[in-house]
Amino acid sequence: MQLNDLKKFIDDVPDFPTPGVHFKDISPLLANGEALNFVVKQMIEYAKDADVIVGPDARGFLFGTPVAAILKKPFVMVRKEKKLPGKVIREEYSYEYSKNVLEMQQNRIFPGQKVVIIDDVLATGGTTKAIIDLVKSQGAIVTKVIFLLELVEFKGLNKYKGIEVISLIKM
Amino acid sequence: MQLNDLKKFIDDVPDFPTPGVHFKDISPLLANGEALNFVVKQMIEYAKDADVIVGPDARGFLFGTPVAAILKKPFVMVRKEKKLPGKVIREEYSYEYSKNVLEMQQNRIFPGQKVVIIDDVLATGGTTKAIIDLVKSQGAIVTKVIFLLELVEFKGLNKYKGIEVISLIKM
Repeated sequence: MQLNDLKKFIDDVPDFPTPGVHFKDISPLLANGEALNFVVKQMIEYAKDADVIVGPDARGFLFGTPVAAILKKPFVMVRKEKKLPGKVIREEYSYEYSKNVLEMQQNRIFPGQKVVIIDDVLATGGTTKAIIDLVKSQGAIVTKVIFLLELVEFKGLNKYKGIEVISLIKM
Repeated sequence: MQLNDLKKFIDDVPDFPTPGVHFKDISPLLANGEALNFVVKQMIEYAKDADVIVGPDARGFLFGTPVAAILKKPFVMVRKEKKLPGKVIREEYSYEYSKNVLEMQQNRIFPGQKVVIIDDVLATGGTTKAIIDLVKSQGAIVTKVIFLLELVEFKGLNKYKGIEVISLIKM
Protein backbone atom coordinates (compact mmCIF):
# COMPACT_ATOMS: atom_id res chain seq x y z
CA MET A 1 0.00 0.00 0.00
CA GLN A 2 1.21 3.52 -0.86
CA LEU A 3 -0.27 6.99 -0.39
CA ASN A 4 -1.19 7.09 -4.09
CA ASP A 5 -3.33 3.98 -3.64
CA LEU A 6 -5.66 5.69 -1.17
CA LYS A 7 -7.67 7.76 -3.70
CA LYS A 8 -9.42 4.71 -5.01
CA PHE A 9 -11.00 4.18 -1.60
CA ILE A 10 -12.76 7.59 -1.68
CA ASP A 11 -16.16 7.65 -3.40
CA ASP A 12 -17.33 10.78 -5.16
CA VAL A 13 -21.06 11.26 -4.52
CA PRO A 14 -22.81 14.01 -6.53
CA ASP A 15 -25.63 16.05 -4.98
CA PHE A 16 -25.16 14.85 -1.40
CA PRO A 17 -26.24 15.95 1.16
CA THR A 18 -27.80 18.73 -1.00
CA PRO A 19 -27.98 19.41 -4.76
CA GLY A 20 -24.75 20.84 -6.18
CA VAL A 21 -22.50 19.45 -3.44
CA HIS A 22 -19.94 16.78 -4.32
CA PHE A 23 -19.57 14.62 -1.25
CA LYS A 24 -16.42 12.62 -0.65
CA ASP A 25 -17.35 9.35 1.03
CA ILE A 26 -14.59 7.72 3.06
CA SER A 27 -16.67 4.61 3.81
CA PRO A 28 -14.81 2.42 1.26
CA LEU A 29 -11.51 3.28 2.93
CA LEU A 30 -12.83 2.39 6.39
CA ALA A 31 -14.21 -0.84 4.96
CA ASN A 32 -10.77 -1.91 3.76
CA GLY A 33 -8.73 -3.13 6.72
CA GLU A 34 -5.37 -2.75 4.95
CA ALA A 35 -6.13 0.82 3.87
CA LEU A 36 -7.40 1.80 7.33
CA ASN A 37 -4.29 0.32 8.95
CA PHE A 38 -2.03 2.12 6.47
CA VAL A 39 -3.73 5.50 7.04
CA VAL A 40 -3.43 5.23 10.81
CA LYS A 41 0.26 4.27 10.55
CA GLN A 42 0.93 7.29 8.33
CA MET A 43 -0.84 9.62 10.76
CA ILE A 44 1.13 8.14 13.66
CA GLU A 45 4.40 9.16 11.99
CA TYR A 46 3.22 12.78 12.00
CA ALA A 47 1.67 12.72 15.49
CA LYS A 48 4.59 11.15 17.37
CA ASP A 49 5.70 14.40 19.01
CA ALA A 50 2.26 15.40 20.28
CA ASP A 51 1.37 15.62 23.97
CA VAL A 52 -2.34 15.41 23.14
CA ILE A 53 -4.48 14.35 20.16
CA VAL A 54 -7.71 16.29 19.55
CA GLY A 55 -10.48 15.19 17.20
CA PRO A 56 -13.98 16.46 16.39
CA ASP A 57 -17.29 14.61 16.56
CA ALA A 58 -17.99 12.44 14.60
CA ARG A 59 -15.58 11.57 11.81
CA GLY A 60 -12.54 13.02 13.55
CA PHE A 61 -13.07 10.25 16.11
CA LEU A 62 -12.47 7.66 13.36
CA PHE A 63 -8.79 8.49 13.01
CA GLY A 64 -7.99 10.36 16.22
CA THR A 65 -8.47 7.52 18.69
CA PRO A 66 -6.49 4.89 16.73
CA VAL A 67 -3.53 7.27 16.63
CA ALA A 68 -3.87 8.19 20.32
CA ALA A 69 -4.44 4.60 21.47
CA ILE A 70 -1.41 3.21 19.66
CA LEU A 71 0.85 6.08 20.78
CA LYS A 72 -0.57 5.91 24.35
CA LYS A 73 -1.40 9.62 24.21
CA PRO A 74 -4.45 11.43 25.59
CA PHE A 75 -7.37 11.91 23.22
CA VAL A 76 -9.63 14.92 23.77
CA MET A 77 -13.05 15.14 22.11
CA VAL A 78 -14.44 18.25 20.48
CA ARG A 79 -18.21 17.85 20.19
CA LYS A 80 -21.31 19.64 19.05
CA GLU A 81 -23.17 21.78 21.55
CA LYS A 82 -24.56 20.17 24.73
CA LYS A 83 -22.98 16.75 24.16
CA LEU A 84 -20.17 17.11 26.71
CA PRO A 85 -20.93 17.31 30.45
CA GLY A 86 -19.19 19.49 33.01
CA LYS A 87 -17.51 22.83 32.43
CA VAL A 88 -16.93 23.40 28.73
CA ILE A 89 -15.44 26.09 26.53
CA ARG A 90 -17.28 26.92 23.31
CA GLU A 91 -16.54 28.34 19.92
CA GLU A 92 -19.02 29.52 17.31
CA TYR A 93 -18.26 29.17 13.63
CA SER A 94 -19.99 29.57 10.29
CA TYR A 95 -20.99 26.39 8.53
CA GLU A 96 -22.88 26.29 5.23
CA TYR A 97 -24.67 29.62 5.79
CA SER A 98 -25.56 28.85 9.40
CA LYS A 99 -23.85 29.07 12.79
CA ASN A 100 -22.55 26.01 14.57
CA VAL A 101 -21.08 25.64 18.03
CA LEU A 102 -18.24 23.34 19.07
CA GLU A 103 -17.39 22.53 22.67
CA MET A 104 -14.47 21.03 24.55
CA GLN A 105 -14.21 20.26 28.27
CA GLN A 106 -12.12 22.57 30.42
CA ASN A 107 -9.01 21.15 32.07
CA ARG A 108 -8.39 18.44 29.48
CA ILE A 109 -5.62 20.39 27.74
CA PHE A 110 -2.99 22.32 29.66
CA PRO A 111 -0.84 25.39 28.99
CA GLY A 112 2.24 24.65 26.90
CA GLN A 113 1.09 21.24 25.65
CA LYS A 114 1.75 20.35 22.03
CA VAL A 115 -1.55 19.46 20.39
CA VAL A 116 -2.12 17.62 17.11
CA ILE A 117 -5.63 17.88 15.60
CA ILE A 118 -6.85 14.98 13.45
CA ASP A 119 -9.89 15.05 11.16
CA ASP A 120 -11.09 13.34 8.02
CA VAL A 121 -11.68 16.04 5.39
CA LEU A 122 -10.35 19.59 4.93
CA ALA A 123 -12.74 21.69 2.82
CA THR A 124 -13.24 25.36 3.77
CA GLY A 125 -11.49 24.74 7.07
CA GLY A 126 -14.03 26.44 9.33
CA THR A 127 -14.43 23.55 11.74
CA THR A 128 -10.71 23.13 12.25
CA LYS A 129 -10.23 26.87 12.71
CA ALA A 130 -12.74 26.72 15.58
CA ILE A 131 -10.90 23.75 17.12
CA ILE A 132 -7.58 25.60 16.88
CA ASP A 133 -9.15 28.54 18.73
CA LEU A 134 -10.47 26.21 21.45
CA VAL A 135 -7.03 24.68 21.94
CA LYS A 136 -5.30 28.07 21.99
CA SER A 137 -7.75 29.36 24.61
CA GLN A 138 -6.30 26.73 26.97
CA GLY A 139 -2.78 28.06 26.48
CA ALA A 140 -1.71 25.04 24.44
CA ILE A 141 0.04 25.02 21.06
CA VAL A 142 -1.37 23.44 17.92
CA THR A 143 1.73 22.00 16.27
CA LYS A 144 0.06 20.12 13.42
CA VAL A 145 -3.27 19.42 11.80
CA ILE A 146 -3.58 16.06 10.05
CA PHE A 147 -6.31 15.30 7.50
CA LEU A 148 -7.01 12.14 5.60
CA LEU A 149 -8.20 14.18 2.63
CA GLU A 150 -7.80 17.77 1.44
CA LEU A 151 -10.18 19.24 -1.14
CA VAL A 152 -7.79 21.76 -2.63
CA GLU A 153 -10.41 23.83 -4.49
CA PHE A 154 -11.73 25.25 -1.21
CA LYS A 155 -8.33 26.69 -0.22
CA GLY A 156 -8.94 25.77 3.43
CA LEU A 157 -5.21 25.95 4.08
CA ASN A 158 -5.38 29.75 4.00
CA LYS A 159 -7.04 29.67 7.43
CA TYR A 160 -4.04 28.07 9.19
CA LYS A 161 -1.08 30.36 8.73
CA GLY A 162 1.89 29.20 10.79
CA ILE A 163 0.54 25.74 11.52
CA GLU A 164 1.82 22.67 9.70
CA VAL A 165 -1.02 20.97 7.80
CA ILE A 166 -0.64 17.41 6.54
CA SER A 167 -3.12 15.82 4.13
CA LEU A 168 -2.53 12.21 3.14
CA ILE A 169 -4.70 12.59 0.02
CA LYS A 170 -5.30 15.72 -2.08
CA MET A 171 -8.21 15.86 -4.52
CA MET B 1 -3.15 -1.44 34.24
CA GLN B 2 -5.93 -3.93 35.01
CA LEU B 3 -9.65 -4.03 34.21
CA ASN B 4 -10.43 -3.03 37.80
CA ASP B 5 -8.44 0.17 37.33
CA LEU B 6 -10.71 1.45 34.57
CA LYS B 7 -13.62 2.57 36.78
CA LYS B 8 -11.67 5.50 38.11
CA PHE B 9 -11.54 6.97 34.60
CA ILE B 10 -15.36 7.16 34.31
CA ASP B 11 -16.93 10.34 35.70
CA ASP B 12 -20.40 10.24 37.16
CA VAL B 13 -22.29 13.39 36.17
CA PRO B 14 -25.68 13.96 37.84
CA ASP B 15 -28.53 15.62 35.92
CA PHE B 16 -26.94 15.46 32.48
CA PRO B 17 -28.17 15.85 29.79
CA THR B 18 -31.49 16.26 31.61
CA PRO B 19 -32.52 16.36 35.30
CA GLY B 20 -32.64 12.93 36.92
CA VAL B 21 -30.23 11.29 34.48
CA HIS B 22 -26.85 10.11 35.74
CA PHE B 23 -24.46 10.47 32.84
CA LYS B 24 -21.30 8.37 32.65
CA ASP B 25 -18.56 10.47 31.11
CA ILE B 26 -15.77 8.50 29.42
CA SER B 27 -13.71 11.63 28.68
CA PRO B 28 -11.20 10.97 31.51
CA LEU B 29 -10.51 7.51 30.09
CA LEU B 30 -9.91 8.89 26.59
CA ALA B 31 -7.67 11.55 28.08
CA ASN B 32 -5.41 8.92 29.65
CA GLY B 33 -3.21 7.40 26.96
CA GLU B 34 -2.36 4.29 28.99
CA ALA B 35 -6.01 3.58 29.79
CA LEU B 36 -7.10 4.13 26.18
CA ASN B 37 -4.36 1.81 24.93
CA PHE B 38 -5.30 -0.82 27.51
CA VAL B 39 -9.02 -0.71 26.59
CA VAL B 40 -8.30 -1.09 22.88
CA LYS B 41 -5.97 -4.04 23.53
CA GLN B 42 -8.66 -5.76 25.62
CA MET B 43 -11.26 -5.25 22.91
CA ILE B 44 -8.86 -6.60 20.30
CA GLU B 45 -8.62 -9.90 22.19
CA TYR B 46 -12.39 -10.31 21.87
CA ALA B 47 -12.63 -9.08 18.25
CA LYS B 48 -9.86 -11.18 16.74
CA ASP B 49 -12.21 -13.65 15.02
CA ALA B 50 -14.40 -10.99 13.38
CA ASP B 51 -14.63 -10.49 9.63
CA VAL B 52 -16.02 -6.98 10.12
CA ILE B 53 -16.19 -4.43 12.94
CA VAL B 54 -19.32 -2.24 13.16
CA GLY B 55 -19.65 0.88 15.30
CA PRO B 56 -22.28 3.59 15.71
CA ASP B 57 -21.94 7.34 15.35
CA ALA B 58 -20.40 9.00 17.36
CA ARG B 59 -18.88 7.31 20.41
CA GLY B 60 -18.82 3.85 18.86
CA PHE B 61 -16.28 5.32 16.44
CA LEU B 62 -13.95 6.00 19.37
CA PHE B 63 -13.23 2.32 20.02
CA GLY B 64 -14.33 0.65 16.79
CA THR B 65 -11.71 2.10 14.44
CA PRO B 66 -8.70 1.48 16.74
CA VAL B 67 -9.68 -2.18 16.96
CA ALA B 68 -10.32 -2.46 13.21
CA ALA B 69 -7.16 -0.54 12.23
CA ILE B 70 -4.85 -2.63 14.39
CA LEU B 71 -6.46 -5.92 13.32
CA LYS B 72 -6.55 -4.76 9.64
CA LYS B 73 -10.26 -5.52 9.49
CA PRO B 74 -13.03 -3.58 7.73
CA PHE B 75 -14.86 -0.97 9.80
CA VAL B 76 -18.46 -0.18 8.86
CA MET B 77 -20.18 2.94 10.19
CA VAL B 78 -23.74 3.04 11.49
CA ARG B 79 -24.91 6.64 11.47
CA LYS B 80 -27.90 8.80 12.22
CA GLU B 81 -30.37 9.47 9.43
CA LYS B 82 -29.17 11.20 6.23
CA LYS B 83 -25.48 11.19 7.16
CA LEU B 84 -24.45 8.34 4.85
CA PRO B 85 -24.60 8.73 1.04
CA GLY B 86 -25.65 6.11 -1.48
CA LYS B 87 -28.06 3.25 -0.93
CA VAL B 88 -28.69 2.70 2.76
CA ILE B 89 -30.73 0.37 4.92
CA ARG B 90 -32.51 1.89 7.91
CA GLU B 91 -33.82 0.83 11.28
CA GLU B 92 -36.13 2.77 13.57
CA TYR B 93 -35.83 2.44 17.32
CA SER B 94 -37.21 4.04 20.46
CA TYR B 95 -34.89 6.35 22.32
CA GLU B 96 -35.85 8.28 25.42
CA TYR B 97 -39.56 8.55 24.52
CA SER B 98 -38.86 9.48 20.89
CA LYS B 99 -38.08 7.63 17.65
CA ASN B 100 -34.59 7.58 16.19
CA VAL B 101 -33.35 6.18 12.91
CA LEU B 102 -30.02 4.49 12.26
CA GLU B 103 -28.63 3.84 8.80
CA MET B 104 -25.90 1.68 7.28
CA GLN B 105 -24.77 1.53 3.66
CA GLN B 106 -25.82 -1.43 1.57
CA ASN B 107 -23.12 -3.77 0.31
CA ARG B 108 -20.64 -3.08 3.09
CA ILE B 109 -21.46 -6.31 4.95
CA PHE B 110 -21.99 -9.59 3.17
CA PRO B 111 -23.97 -12.77 3.87
CA GLY B 112 -22.24 -15.16 6.24
CA GLN B 113 -19.71 -12.65 7.59
CA LYS B 114 -18.95 -12.67 11.30
CA VAL B 115 -19.63 -9.19 12.69
CA VAL B 116 -18.49 -7.72 16.01
CA ILE B 117 -20.28 -4.57 17.17
CA ILE B 118 -18.33 -2.14 19.38
CA ASP B 119 -19.81 0.75 21.36
CA ASP B 120 -19.03 2.72 24.48
CA VAL B 121 -21.96 2.31 26.89
CA LEU B 122 -24.70 -0.33 27.24
CA ALA B 123 -27.78 1.10 28.99
CA THR B 124 -31.23 0.01 27.80
CA GLY B 125 -29.65 -1.53 24.71
CA GLY B 126 -32.03 -0.04 22.14
CA THR B 127 -29.32 1.37 19.88
CA THR B 128 -27.41 -1.88 19.74
CA LYS B 129 -30.59 -3.88 19.10
CA ALA B 130 -31.20 -1.69 16.02
CA ILE B 131 -27.61 -2.26 14.83
CA ILE B 132 -27.98 -6.02 15.28
CA ASP B 133 -31.13 -5.90 13.11
CA LEU B 134 -29.29 -3.90 10.43
CA VAL B 135 -26.46 -6.44 10.35
CA LYS B 136 -28.84 -9.41 10.25
CA SER B 137 -30.77 -7.85 7.36
CA GLN B 138 -27.58 -8.24 5.30
CA GLY B 139 -27.42 -11.96 6.02
CA ALA B 140 -24.42 -11.56 8.32
CA ILE B 141 -24.01 -12.97 11.83
CA VAL B 142 -23.40 -10.85 14.94
CA THR B 143 -20.99 -12.99 16.93
CA LYS B 144 -20.22 -10.51 19.72
CA VAL B 145 -21.07 -7.10 21.08
CA ILE B 146 -18.30 -5.35 22.98
CA PHE B 147 -18.93 -2.40 25.31
CA LEU B 148 -16.52 -0.36 27.33
CA LEU B 149 -19.12 0.07 30.06
CA GLU B 150 -22.33 -1.70 31.06
CA LEU B 151 -24.87 0.03 33.31
CA VAL B 152 -26.33 -3.09 34.87
CA GLU B 153 -29.44 -1.44 36.36
CA PHE B 154 -30.96 -1.01 32.87
CA LYS B 155 -30.82 -4.75 32.13
CA GLY B 156 -29.90 -4.05 28.48
CA LEU B 157 -28.49 -7.57 28.18
CA ASN B 158 -32.03 -8.95 28.01
CA LYS B 159 -32.32 -7.62 24.46
CA TYR B 160 -29.49 -9.79 23.06
CA LYS B 161 -30.41 -13.38 23.67
CA GLY B 162 -27.98 -15.77 21.98
CA ILE B 163 -25.31 -13.14 21.33
CA GLU B 164 -22.15 -12.95 23.43
CA VAL B 165 -21.94 -9.57 25.17
CA ILE B 166 -18.65 -8.38 26.66
CA SER B 167 -18.43 -5.32 28.92
CA LEU B 168 -14.99 -4.31 30.18
CA ILE B 169 -16.51 -2.30 33.05
CA LYS B 170 -19.77 -2.92 34.92
CA MET B 171 -21.30 -0.18 37.06
